[in-house]
Amino acid sequence: MVLYLIGLGLFNEQDITLRGLDAVQGCSRVYLEAYTSILLCGKEKLEALYGKEVIIADREMVESRAEEILEGADTQDVAFCVVGDPFGATTHTDLQLRARERGIPVRVVHNASVMNAVGACGLSLYRFGEAVSIVFFTDTWRPDSFYDKILANRRLGLHTLCLLDIKVKEPDLAALARGRVVYEPPRYMSINTAISQLLEVEERRKGGAFSSTSLVVGIARLQADDQQIVAGTMEQLLEVDFGAPLHCLVLAGDLHVTEREMLEFYMIGSTVAPVRR
Amino acid sequence: MVLYLIGLGLFNEQDITLRGLDAVQGCSRVYLEAYTSILLCGKEKLEALYGKEVIIADREMVESRAEEILEGADTQDVAFCVVGDPFGATTHTDLQLRARERGIPVRVVHNASVMNAVGACGLSLYRFGEAVSIVFFTDTWRPDSFYDKILANRRLGLHTLCLLDIKVKEPDLAALARGRVVYEPPRYMSINTAISQLLEVEERRKGGAFSSTSLVVGIARLQADDQQIVAGTMEQLLEVDFGAPLHCLVLAGDLHVTEREMLEFYMIGSTVAPVRR
Repeated sequence: MVLYLIGLGLFNEQDITLRGLDAVQGCSRVYLEAYTSILLCGKEKLEALYGKEVIIADREMVESRAEEILEGADTQDVAFCVVGDPFGATTHTDLQLRARERGIPVRVVHNASVMNAVGACGLSLYRFGEAVSIVFFTDTWRPDSFYDKILANRRLGLHTLCLLDIKVKEPDLAALARGRVVYEPPRYMSINTAISQLLEVEERRKGGAFSSTSLVVGIARLQADDQQIVAGTMEQLLEVDFGAPLHCLVLAGDLHVTEREMLEFYMIGSTVAPVRR
Repeated sequence: MVLYLIGLGLFNEQDITLRGLDAVQGCSRVYLEAYTSILLCGKEKLEALYGKEVIIADREMVESRAEEILEGADTQDVAFCVVGDPFGATTHTDLQLRARERGIPVRVVHNASVMNAVGACGLSLYRFGEAVSIVFFTDTWRPDSFYDKILANRRLGLHTLCLLDIKVKEPDLAALARGRVVYEPPRYMSINTAISQLLEVEERRKGGAFSSTSLVVGIARLQADDQQIVAGTMEQLLEVDFGAPLHCLVLAGDLHVTEREMLEFYMIGSTVAPVRR
């Protein structure tokens, strides 16, 4: 009947909308996309709330077994739940295109994603340029295509949201070489790692997009009770312990007066008492 | 105790999150910010769901009588509800700063806003540059500062989200001159008006940011059952009736393959059957 793409919001099972909950409860199968982002609650919490089983959809299932997800969606509703907004980090284009080719209507239930909730740090959403993704560097793979985008934003005086890498269910290559499929433990990039990778790239590229004294804002666990927002120089934030994931980072562009006032609350060494959330 | 800033999402009372509903039900007073955006349901629907009175906060109240909203928030919870996300279109900086100066903790409940839900049109959120606002032109006031921003995005190959003007509770200047306060009926800018204003500005500025044959996407009533998304040239969309508000408009930048595939569904004259939502 319908393929629902349902945004679950930022933090836990309480962040679904009434519209989303109503849709999910009417579906015969419920998938949870669990590789581009994560909720900070177990799937048991979702199952208790929805009153039905939640099937974890890893990258392999979504990319190689989309037909399985759509199976029967012509006679009954199927929900594909995505942390944040269904169009926040990825559009899951392939799944939608396949559904539409099969004549299955697609309905979307929107929710908050980091792409809009980042406004919580006090910088105006209007004044963000293109967002960038920063992936974990390895010994042999240190991609820095984000650098040119940050530089372009910086030249326009715009802020840049940096989305930080998430690695879940990555095969252990050493084990794979021995013919065994073993998954590495999940890894979530910290703000500290992101900053040190950024500074390494600036050191290499020398384009002046930012420096160790540039103003940045680190945001950890958006919407959680222990959400943490800290503003300071890149150098200062390298030393801050932001705790559990998920983290993201904003490189500030030119600041308007009201942005500056809002950032004051989050500034390292600010005399303004930090606001308990 | 706490000032809650609660995002209500895009369309009607069903778009609040469980977290937001729980917060609003625990508050002693509930305000609805009703001048930067609107829900497509009356406040009676909200009151029935929340089980309490909803006080409409117009621009004058928020900008001049913030103390009234915060009154008593040191001993009881107060909710300030915003259509979309509390940081979507505006940060309501002044209200937050005042709360914090008075030592009142501010908590935010995020939700979808047009700033992230615009991804529904098939264009990747990653590839949007700075968003712009387009206000109603008058005989004597035809501001076009958005033009340089569109041009900068266009040069980087990025998409531009145009937020269209909303005029609610604007004083009738003729009546005001006669000493009477009369409000004009609300006005919401249509996609057609936005396009014709944009083309007028291009005609004047001649910077080549866009032309009547540029690809744009019109989006009306995001998240509503009768949501409408149509892609085509500016010239083509001038003729499309998008119906009731709210409308927004995207000027497309360079298209990736998957973006092109997704846009196919919404293209005027597309052979792909439009998807019923």
